[in-house]
Amino acid sequence: MGLDYEIFKLGNVRLQRGGRLPDCKLAYKTFGKMSAAKDNVIVYPTWYSGQHPDNEWLIGPGMALDPEKYFIIIPNMLGNGLSSSPSNVPAPYNGPRFPRVATYDNVQAQHRLLTEKFGVKKLCLVTGWSMGALQTFHWGALYPDMVERIAPFCGSAKCSRHNFVFLEGVKAALTADGTFNGGWYKEQPTRGLRAMARVYAGWGFSQAFYRERLDLERLGYSSLEDFLVGFWEGFFAPKDANNLLAMLWNWQNGDVSDNELYKGDFKRALGAIKAKAYVMPGQTDLYFPPEDSQFEVANMPNAKFLPVPSIWGHFAGGPGINPADVKFIDNALKELLSA
Amino acid sequence: MGLDYEIFKLGNVRLQRGGRLPDCKLAYKTFGKMSAAKDNVIVYPTWYSGQHPDNEWLIGPGMALDPEKYFIIIPNMLGNGLSSSPSNVPAPYNGPRFPRVATYDNVQAQHRLLTEKFGVKKLCLVTGWSMGALQTFHWGALYPDMVERIAPFCGSAKCSRHNFVFLEGVKAALTADGTFNGGWYKEQPTRGLRAMARVYAGWGFSQAFYRERLDLERLGYSSLEDFLVGFWEGFFAPKDANNLLAMLWNWQNGDVSDNELYKGDFKRALGAIKAKAYVMPGQTDLYFPPEDSQFEVANMPNAKFLPVPSIWGHFAGGPGINPADVKFIDNALKELLSA
Repeated sequence: MGLDYEIFKLGNVRLQRGGRLPDCKLAYKTFGKMSAAKDNVIVYPTWYSGQHPDNEWLIGPGMALDPEKYFIIIPNMLGNGLSSSPSNVPAPYNGPRFPRVATYDNVQAQHRLLTEKFGVKKLCLVTGWSMGALQTFHWGALYPDMVERIAPFCGSAKCSRHNFVFLEGVKAALTADGTFNGGWYKEQPTRGLRAMARVYAGWGFSQAFYRERLDLERLGYSSLEDFLVGFWEGFFAPKDANNLLAMLWNWQNGDVSDNELYKGDFKRALGAIKAKAYVMPGQTDLYFPPEDSQFEVANMPNAKFLPVPSIWGHFAGGPGINPADVKFIDNALKELLSA
Repeated sequence: MGLDYEIFKLGNVRLQRGGRLPDCKLAYKTFGKMSAAKDNVIVYPTWYSGQHPDNEWLIGPGMALDPEKYFIIIPNMLGNGLSSSPSNVPAPYNGPRFPRVATYDNVQAQHRLLTEKFGVKKLCLVTGWSMGALQTFHWGALYPDMVERIAPFCGSAKCSRHNFVFLEGVKAALTADGTFNGGWYKEQPTRGLRAMARVYAGWGFSQAFYRERLDLERLGYSSLEDFLVGFWEGFFAPKDANNLLAMLWNWQNGDVSDNELYKGDFKRALGAIKAKAYVMPGQTDLYFPPEDSQFEVANMPNAKFLPVPSIWGHFAGGPGINPADVKFIDNALKELLSA
């Protein structure tokens, strides 16, 4: 049985912040077939620490992202363990010496995949959850003439100061484990990874989610502790610490206007997004609160504010664990794609 | 110069969860003078990791808690480093062998101080922030005939499941530092204490607080990083890790009905509170959301729901850093005391 994804070789990539990745690789998976006119292409980037299988819940026959109609590409984020990452590049750029990779770099790499490999000139949609939404906004602002529609959900075009602080807590918990050793660990800092998972647990779902005991009633865990171990520690403990920190840096520094095109002018970058946009924050998301999305929509020429009415917090947007939220997002994508 | 507080010796105290503290000590500070009728007594317990000086912002001439009118007692929570705590009791009950101390035990100790030392039979008010609010609710439920008024602010009568998870993250960050060594540290686990501070930073203030840059504009820090180091790490880094964990256990297990009187029947415990109550959550408090206070008020016979209209998150309630919030709480206390 082979791998279920492809590798696009980018060669020697110079990064926005000055670093360099020789023999940089972008891992991706495709669904469906490209039409002769190349007018049915959808890009659907991954989220923090997620990999392409974690995105597949939103793809399927009869859904908006229908492989029988669309050619859907899931590019794995650099640093996520499948694309070039601290854990998989050869020395000397491995581990804590992996260079700073920004969302700008990810979208540049994805753009090369689409144009050089597939000869694509238009995208009918870019969509994504969380850091996938961050990449989605970048697509809209960096390639306004190429992207017809965007649907960022449970994410933002710029990491807010509060979101930055939440991530500082996650990072501090992971790196408090002495085994981490500044990234020069011989084995994974398990205690730190599990601490990070517990920090994340309070942020990922809303107060109302826990109040209604949906971890037990809907997700089937036997107790709150079982949820913390089984869901949260189970997710983060197997991951590579340096990979997680590379992506965390990317997230904290996410800003659609932080590039030569917009030079930090956030409103101008938002205003440049020509795509028809459905911006869908989770109504109870604790680190991407709807207020930030409202600001974005108010500064975009062609955008609709469409909060997901859910008490699942950030997980209103994925990964497909609450059917009502999946249906809401899928319906919105259908409406957007038919426009 | 002597200490600015007194010690009440409780002797050999048997604790609710089965532990025992020989020669248990309650540190407290008083303000003003008790009237001959002993009818002007206010109890104002401390909060998580706070000590009596951290409570004094709400006391002063012309304020509701006016020492010229009232005899105000601030009892220090057991575990806070002044009352009996892991850091200050003699072996063998010190450090990680400090027994489980619940809020029930704190209020029992405070009740003994008031009755045995001061001969008090009525309290005109119990009030407190955060874990001080937890103690306030306990006063109302455990001594319904003694307490005339309560004003818990930015706190709850029972630790919610979400609040519990938030604290799991704090605890995991602190204990991820190998120096902690299960509580048998030779020096304080500084990295863990600072990690805990960074985890706390995202929870303490609201998204809107950070969005409006109040850390810079109002609190005068030079940058977000300066705020994380100066305010947050500066607060937690000097504290004793076992003390913090003893109080954290107390918080996580806080429940006004978890005792022989109410046997876990939360609604019955709330219903037993005869005191006239002003329950004041912070409108943007991330770990004591107003919804939980509404539930409490709905089950109390004589309570008013009065959220503090503030974007300062949990810090709407203290420690006196936002004048508008201080004024709101002070006015509410004046109104309540005059009723």
